[in-house]
Formats: sequence, structure tokens, C-alpha cells
Amino acid sequence: MGFYKAGAKAARYGLEFGVMKHNFKTVALIGRYNSPDVGETLHRLADFLVAHGIKILVESGTAANIGSTPHTVETLDEIGRQADLVVVLAGDGTMLNIARSLVNYGSTLVGINQGRLGFLTDVSVDTMLGTMEEILQGEYTEEERFLLSTAVRRQGQDVFESYAFNDAVVSKGVTARIIEMEVFIDGQFVYSQRSDGLIVATPTGSTAYALSSGGPILYPTLEAFVLVPICPHTLSNRPIAVNSESTVEILLLRADDAVAHFDGQRHFSLEQNDWVIVRRSKTRIKLLHPLGHSYYDTLRQKLHWGEKL
Amino acid sequence: MGFYKAGAKAARYGLEFGVMKHNFKTVALIGRYNSPDVGETLHRLADFLVAHGIKILVESGTAANIGSTPHTVETLDEIGRQADLVVVLAGDGTMLNIARSLVNYGSTLVGINQGRLGFLTDVSVDTMLGTMEEILQGEYTEEERFLLSTAVRRQGQDVFESYAFNDAVVSKGVTARIIEMEVFIDGQFVYSQRSDGLIVATPTGSTAYALSSGGPILYPTLEAFVLVPICPHTLSNRPIAVNSESTVEILLLRADDAVAHFDGQRHFSLEQNDWVIVRRSKTRIKLLHPLGHSYYDTLRQKLHWGEKL
Amino acid sequence: MGFYKAGAKAARYGLEFGVMKHNFKTVALIGRYNSPDVGETLHRLADFLVAHGIKILVESGTAANIGSTPHTVETLDEIGRQADLVVVLAGDGTMLNIARSLVNYGSTLVGINQGRLGFLTDVSVDTMLGTMEEILQGEYTEEERFLLSTAVRRQGQDVFESYAFNDAVVSKGVTARIIEMEVFIDGQFVYSQRSDGLIVATPTGSTAYALSSGGPILYPTLEAFVLVPICPHTLSNRPIAVNSESTVEILLLRADDAVAHFDGQRHFSLEQNDWVIVRRSKTRIKLLHPLGHSYYDTLRQKLHWGEKL
Amino acid sequence: MGFYKAGAKAARYGLEFGVMKHNFKTVALIGRYNSPDVGETLHRLADFLVAHGIKILVESGTAANIGSTPHTVETLDEIGRQADLVVVLAGDGTMLNIARSLVNYGSTLVGINQGRLGFLTDVSVDTMLGTMEEILQGEYTEEERFLLSTAVRRQGQDVFESYAFNDAVVSKGVTARIIEMEVFIDGQFVYSQRSDGLIVATPTGSTAYALSSGGPILYPTLEAFVLVPICPHTLSNRPIAVNSESTVEILLLRADDAVAHFDGQRHFSLEQNDWVIVRRSKTRIKLLHPLGHSYYDTLRQKLHWGEKL
Repeated sequence: MGFYKAGAKAARYGLEFGVMKHNFKTVALIGRYNSPDVGETLHRLADFLVAHGIKILVESGTAANIGSTPHTVETLDEIGRQADLVVVLAGDGTMLNIARSLVNYGSTLVGINQGRLGFLTDVSVDTMLGTMEEILQGEYTEEERFLLSTAVRRQGQDVFESYAFNDAVVSKGVTARIIEMEVFIDGQFVYSQRSDGLIVATPTGSTAYALSSGGPILYPTLEAFVLVPICPHTLSNRPIAVNSESTVEILLLRADDAVAHFDGQRHFSLEQNDWVIVRRSKTRIKLLHPLGHSYYDTLRQKLHWGEKL
Repeated sequence: MGFYKAGAKAARYGLEFGVMKHNFKTVALIGRYNSPDVGETLHRLADFLVAHGIKILVESGTAANIGSTPHTVETLDEIGRQADLVVVLAGDGTMLNIARSLVNYGSTLVGINQGRLGFLTDVSVDTMLGTMEEILQGEYTEEERFLLSTAVRRQGQDVFESYAFNDAVVSKGVTARIIEMEVFIDGQFVYSQRSDGLIVATPTGSTAYALSSGGPILYPTLEAFVLVPICPHTLSNRPIAVNSESTVEILLLRADDAVAHFDGQRHFSLEQNDWVIVRRSKTRIKLLHPLGHSYYDTLRQKLHWGEKL
Repeated sequence: MGFYKAGAKAARYGLEFGVMKHNFKTVALIGRYNSPDVGETLHRLADFLVAHGIKILVESGTAANIGSTPHTVETLDEIGRQADLVVVLAGDGTMLNIARSLVNYGSTLVGINQGRLGFLTDVSVDTMLGTMEEILQGEYTEEERFLLSTAVRRQGQDVFESYAFNDAVVSKGVTARIIEMEVFIDGQFVYSQRSDGLIVATPTGSTAYALSSGGPILYPTLEAFVLVPICPHTLSNRPIAVNSESTVEILLLRADDAVAHFDGQRHFSLEQNDWVIVRRSKTRIKLLHPLGHSYYDTLRQKLHWGEKL
Repeated sequence: MGFYKAGAKAARYGLEFGVMKHNFKTVALIGRYNSPDVGETLHRLADFLVAHGIKILVESGTAANIGSTPHTVETLDEIGRQADLVVVLAGDGTMLNIARSLVNYGSTLVGINQGRLGFLTDVSVDTMLGTMEEILQGEYTEEERFLLSTAVRRQGQDVFESYAFNDAVVSKGVTARIIEMEVFIDGQFVYSQRSDGLIVATPTGSTAYALSSGGPILYPTLEAFVLVPICPHTLSNRPIAVNSESTVEILLLRADDAVAHFDGQRHFSLEQNDWVIVRRSKTRIKLLHPLGHSYYDTLRQKLHWGEKL
């Protein structure tokens, strides 16, 4: 009791172990654009993979950034179509962006972080080659994560669509004091709310903005969304987690100046009577973790929670 | 958009509609013990059901309380074995108690409230006969709810076991300032915690004690537990929701004076190095709701959330 | 014990009873601009006061709004110089605005509300004449309230100044994800903070935006500010109340897009390295309340707190 | 701007600088009872002070604990009467205890901590002699702190009295689910509350239990109490800070099992209809801090708040 038997309990986390040798014949490499020295790391990794007989694709934006590369350069969409594994050398912010681009293809991602490890980029650049060696030998855990599939509906037309990996946020703009919304879940009226905004977060996003706004942490494989109000006028308003199969519909009642944000990276100006509609994505991305990875270890480290006494 | 089509969307909530005439041949009636006037209501309901050809069982404790009854008197366990439907004339507190006693039998419950409607007892005594008429005609929604199956393990032996419908709580006693625990989920170390206590709540219990302690609301059919610390020493500690298939293990490290509570109705004194183990119950109780019942309506009313503007 | 003896305990609240007949020889009347029917109420009140030998001033913006008035029309500044009492027929929002304009003159204000009573406008239009009669007879309580005196300093120059009755807020704009600040109190470094923003609130403002963001309530006459973070990145960040004699200095470290707000009614765009400096105003406005007024009654009503059982 | 000029601004914090040579002719030494090695440290400090011509008193409980001492042994009460300075070699917990015992004498305290520095014990044992040297030369800051003076009134009689330096807490016992109270401030009804309990904290106590329960931080010299509910049933209940001149009266309406706690160190069983009455102590203790001490530095360190970027 109290000890983790990986094999026996993996299924409980929604993890599946790769038990066979890998099928990663084509691996795509994506680097953080504004990092000048990512090219060296990327080519070191590419050399390692080529030596294992693997075909390399370098994402076109990354290629433009690092100057020149001997490898095939492809767009993100082609990478989605061709790559068996996508390695992202960047931080969690870039992973959000890549996940939104590749979720349609059900891509498999692993994140290598050059700085402090993140929730999504949990392989250190220092141990990169060793971890990749293990992954090629099938020693890793794989985790499926859904995204939010969102739309803004105006006068019956979808005028904007976006995926979101962390969260979709409806919030006041600069000059507005508050916004007023009505929220429906699966067609049932939930509440009207006056607030600075409302966050709909995935389990992945539950440790991001939603957490700062008082939301709970959702274990990554939980099949749930969480709705977290931002500075609600009604003090008894509380975060509520609902089944991920639900459709969340937010009607903007009063909005001199309101904006929808997707992972804090895409923005769309809203108008009065707009509906923001949030569903679970039909396809999912897959995240690989090194063996021995524990979500709770990451939580403890990032949130200064108590270690063993 | 924005309107609830009951038939089409019921499955999303884990609801199933009774589409055929009822199979409620035997109905048990249970009243709140310390209510002197429950006998009259109970017999009015019994008369109605008998007129529909239904066999009535009266729970033995209820029978002792109301004086005399012409109907068959049975223990709770016999009711679990024989009754197709159990009607509880009481408040949510009594429902917790009954659910713990009947979960092994997978019983079907409906709650009739003589006062302000509760989360679990959502039929008013004023409309009781009309609602029962509808239920007999198969017009209701049915919802499955799991309980917590908990044990206290001391030196390798299970020294106490209890179900809990709302929550299992490990908390300091009167003289202790704080308690210290280590928490594991599926064998993975989560955190050590100094606090007044720790609540493990079901979705059903997420609107009870856990909510007062800062926890989120979980939609009733969400397959999740939530762990909510009570006055944690580490200010960054946050509620965390995990899959209901998880096993939560709490090791009491320091406890001059600690107690485990189950629905706030059963109590067990803990000793240092005790483990409190929390799992999902293998069987579930079923709750019937009147057609048109909305969980969100109950939330809004009880939490003073905003109505439609 | 347990009962309120107004005379004996008034000093404890910072209240002073007017025990003599009034000295309100000149009374100014100010109405809410966008209310079409305020003219009738205003003239009814004016007639009542004229009948008591009082000289009436009507604020120029109000006069423009209500069409015509037989009374002297004056600017807010002239009202500050001449009026012994300023009656505001409006809601709390207008009172904030008027208080900022008149604090330099140490004006005495009373608020008459045509709708739901506010924290600052606690006389109902229905009982307006009776309450004014009492006030003229010296039957009222008087309460001094300070404002915030704020400045934005850029490269050593004060580029913006404003009073604030509720709060001064430094917050992110639309496109920014977060802002970064360093906060100093009386020259001592307090913390650096990444968040959506920071609220510095008076006791008056502690029941407004600061409360929605998790701040405490400060009794109106407490000599304190409270600093309340908005969605702080560091989860252990907490509101902190400091002496009102303190100087709070906020240095904007990173701000692609940040704004300072004053009572949510005045806005000023900030630049990187700007300082926002917050002090207590040198002069104060005075608020009159009807006898029997209790701040706690207002709190209970507005926050749905428990009444006597 | 942004830098601390100690001389000019000390008064703002309620600090007064000792500008003359010291008047500490008699110094009392108190050690933590259950620390076996405190005797060595205590005698090292005593030798240093004796060499400066100072008379030493050793507290009788400490003397009993450390075995033998060549110095005069006195009770705490005699120490209160005779000592010009009381040095406590212990943690914050012991300081609470000593402050309650000495507040009647208006004693001056300084705390030396053998482990991690506390809020009240902010001199490290490693730099103890250097700091004492400075203190003897008048180089320190002095801060007055009030305590709570509390009583339990039963059927018109005060049946228990206690000081509290951190907090007075009315809370449920082990078997009770909740307690019900009515709260009055200066005779005015504030609210009825169902909760796990209610904390009345001083600014000193605002970083202790009250903080874990969601209360704000009060700067140590703020003239305020804060009332912080513990797990309140009404979700809109919020901490409220009131003038320290206020009298807080708590009527226990329903209490099968309730207890009053004082600094978590003294306990008194309450009965239904008991009143717990909380006032500011008439006298205050004085705390000495080393020059350069900043309360905000302690906060940042203990709460993991952001350092300068």
C-alpha cells in the first residue's frame, strides 16, 4: 500500500504503456521561434534520430528561424499528416499553440524544455537523448488529452472558430466595468452572471488561468470542463465542473467591450447577443511522458506543496 | 440553441427516461424519525399507492415512531432486498443515511420533503401524489450516484468500514491544533499536508461541507472525487478532482487527536499511522427526479445565483 | 449587552451626533444625469427645503438635464465652496463621482436613492422628506470618509492625478496576458507580482470590486487601505490591509498594455516603468446617515448574510 | 522614491527608534521548556549581558528545565514586575504564551529563534550576541502590540477570562457538525452564522490561523481586529476588519459541543447561550526588532511571495 506499481495501475490514469518497439518512422521537430540557440539543440536531436533510421521533418517556421537545415521542411499541416511523433523544443506556451494546430490530426507530442520544466514540456534538454532513446524503445506513458472546440455565433452564423487546449475565456475589455452573461449547459439555464469574465477550462488548463481565478485542479485525464468565474459580482458564485460531453453556451447580454480569448493566444472581439459555444474536440492529441513521470510531482514542485515529512 | 430538449439530451446527463409503465410492485416508505406528524403523510401516500395495486413496506424504525400501521413492517435490509422503489419522507440528511444502508442493494430512491426542497429530496409534500402518479406512469428521470467505500486500516487490519454519500473527512479533534497527513492517489504521492482536515467528497457531497471549505461544485453524474483541504497551512493548496476509479489513501502522520467522519453522521477516532482508504462503491443507488427537474435550478435557488435578466 | 445604545457608543464608530439644530443654510441638489424623471423629485425636495428657509443650488449638469429650474444654478466647484449640504439623488456610482469632485472642499453629502438602497445612498426617495426633516433638526449621524489621492509618475513627472473614493486599480489591458509589478509601502519592498491587476481600496471600496476579487470588508471608518491582487500568479498571495497613512507605490515592470482605473470611472493608459502612487487624501468628505442606520444591516441585506435566527 | 529612509518614516509604522543608550538594567531570560540544549545558549547570552553590567533573571520554569543556573530565578509575574527587557529563546508559539502572561505589565520582549525565524522571534541564535550588542546601544525598532482581552459570560457571570495574542476562536467540537452563532459589534447585530467556527484575530494573529481560513493580512500596527468565519454555511460570508476599539460579542445559539480557543493554547468548553466577549487589551506588550527588520521581508519569505525581478 502506498507504492506505485506502474504496470498494474497505469490504466487507472488513462495511461497506456508502449510495450512494443516504436513505430516512430517519421518524427517532426518544432522549435521555439524567438529562441536563437534552438537550432543547435534541434540538430543534435535530429542527428540522434537519423542515426536510428528515422526520417526528420523540420517545421517551416522553425526552419526559417534557425537559418538552414539539411532536413525536409514541412508546414504544420503536413507534419500533422505525415509525422508519427512531434517533438516540441519549447515551453508550455508553444505546446498550446502546436496542440491547437495538430489536434485535427490526432498527433502524438512530446515536449522538451530548455528551462524550468512545464506541465506539458516535461523532458529536460539535459536528458533529452536518453529520454528519446527510451521512447524509441517503447518505454514511455501515453496520455490522451482533449481540447475545447469553440465557436462564436452571431445572428445565427458562426463568425469565429478556434480550438483551445487550456481555456476559452469571455472577459471584459479595458473600458467595461463588468460584463453580463447567461450561461447554459446542454440547453439548461445555469445562471446569469455579472463579472470580469468567465473561464471554461480543460483539465490541462485547470492549472493555468483558471487556478489563479480560484478554480480547482482537475486531474489531466478527467472527462470534465470547469467553469470558473472571474471576480463575480455574486459572492456565492463557485467554480463548477461538468462532463466533457456537455455543450456550454454563453450568451453575452451586455457588453460595451468584451473579448473572447483562447489559450490567451487568440482573441476575438465580441458584440452584444453573441453566443460563445464550447464543446469537447472530436479528436485528441496524445502526450508522451517519460516513464516514472508523476503529475503530482509537477504539482508539488510548481505550487510549493508539502513534500514527504 | 439555448433550449432543453429532454429526450435528445438526457443521455448526456447520465439520465435515462423510464419509457414503459412502471415496475414498482413493492414500494417501501421511510419517514424522518423525530418528526411527529410524518405518520399522517406517510399513510396518505400509502393509501394512494395501495389504490394502484402496490404492496407497501414500512421501515421498522419509522413504524416504531408513528405508532401503528396496517402495512408490512420490514427492516432496512429487507427493504433493500424486496422494494422496487424506496420513498423517503425526510430531508437530505436522512437520505444520506438511507443511501449508505441501501447502496449494497442498488436501491432506487425518491425523496419527499416536508420543508424547503433539498438536493436529494426534490419532491414537495404538496405535490407528492401528482408526482407519484407521474412516476408510476414512467414519467421521471433516473440518475445513478456512487458512494464512497471507505476503510480505516491500522497495522495492516481494516478496523472500521463505512460508506459515505457526501464525504469522508479526516479532521483534527478538539484539542489538536492541526493534523499532519500524507496523501497518495493510486499509490502516487500527492502531498503532505498540515491543516484542520481533508475532505474527500463525491459529486453529491460537493455542494455540502466541501463547498463551505472552498471546493468546486461537481455535476452529480461526473465520475470524480474531489479532495478539499480544510484551512491548510500551505496557502497554495487547492482542491483537486480526480477520477472516481482512483484509490485515495491518507496516512495520518501526527495526530494527538484526530477523527474520521462519514457524511458527518458516523465518526471514528483515528490513531497515528492509521490509513484512511477511500474508493468508489462497487454498486450505486438510483435517484428518481420529477420530469423537468434541473440540477442548476436547485443550485441557483440555494446559492442565490443570478436568475435570467 | 447585545443592544445598541446610540448615544453612548456612537464615538466608537467614528460617528458624531448632530445635537443642535442644523446649520444647513445653503443646500445643493444634484441628480443623476440620465434619469428623465429626477426633476420632479428634485423640485419636490427643493420646495420642502425652501419652505424651511434654505437657499437652493442646483448643479449645472443636473439643471441642463431637467430642463428648467427656478433655483440658482452653480457648477460643482461653486457648490463645493458655497453649500453646507449636498444632496445627491442618484445611486452609489454617482456618489463616487461627486465625492471625487468635492473632497477638496470637505463637503457634507447625503444620498437619496430612487431604487434599491446603496452603501452610500441610504435614504429612500419614499421617506426622503421625513429624513430631511430629521436632518434639519440635527437628528442624523455623520461619518468622515477619506479618499485615495493618486498620481501616475513617468520619468520623474506626475503625468496624471486623480482622487478615488472606492479604489485605484492597475490592471492588464485587453491583449496582455498578465502584468508584472513591484509594490512598495512607505519605501519598503512588499512583493513583485504577476497578475491580472492590483486593487488598492478604501474601506468604502472594500465592498465593491475588491470584494469580488477576494478582499476583506473594512469597516467604513477604519484607518486602512487594502491591497487586493486580481488573479495572482502566486497562489499564496493574499490581501493585505495597511495603515491609511501609508504611501503605496506600484512600479509597472512589464506592461505591453496596462491601464490605471479610478473608481472604474476614470482610466489612464500606463507605460512600462510608470509608478502609480496612492496616498490618503488630505481632506475628507462627510456622509450623513439617518438615525438608526447600521452598516451591518446594509451588509446583511446586500450579501444575503444570515438574519437573526 | 522606492527606498526606505528609516529615520524619516519610522513613525508611519508605529515604530519608535531607541535613540539613547539603553535602560535595560535587568534582563529576564526565558527558554523553550522542551528543548534540552537551550541551557547552553541561555548561559552564553547571560554571560554576555553580565559582562555589560546587566542583572539577569531566569524564569523559574526555564530554570527547572535547564538543571542549574547561577542567576536569580523568578516567576513570570516577578519578571513582569522587575525586568526591563525579556528575552525569549524559543519559537513564536512560546512568545504567544509569554505575551499573554506579561501583557498586564506592558513588558518589552525580544525573540531569539534557534531554527527558522518566526514573525515574533526574528533574531537568529547565530547573530544573537551582535544583535543584543546593538540593542544595548539603542539600535533597534520598537513596536507596540495589543492583545485580545476575552471573557466567557454565562447567565450574566464571567466564567472564564483569557488574553489572546493571535486569536480567540469559537469552534465546533468533535461530534458537532456546525455551530450557530449571533455576532454583535458594539451592540449592533452583524450576522447569524452557521459554520465550523469564527476566528477573531489581532493583526499579529492575521498571519496565523485566520490566514489559513481565508482572512486578510493586517499590518502589525493596524488598529483593527478581523473576524474570519471557518467554513461558513453562507457562501457570501466574508472576513470583516473592524476598529480595535470595538467590542465583539458572540452568542452561541446552538452548540451541542463547542469550544473557545485562545491562541490555540488555552481551551474552554462552551454551553448554549454563552457569550464570548472580545475586546482590545488595556495594556500592550512591546516588541523589539533589529534595525533593518522589515515585516514584508518576513511575509515574502514565509508565503513564497515574489522577490524583486
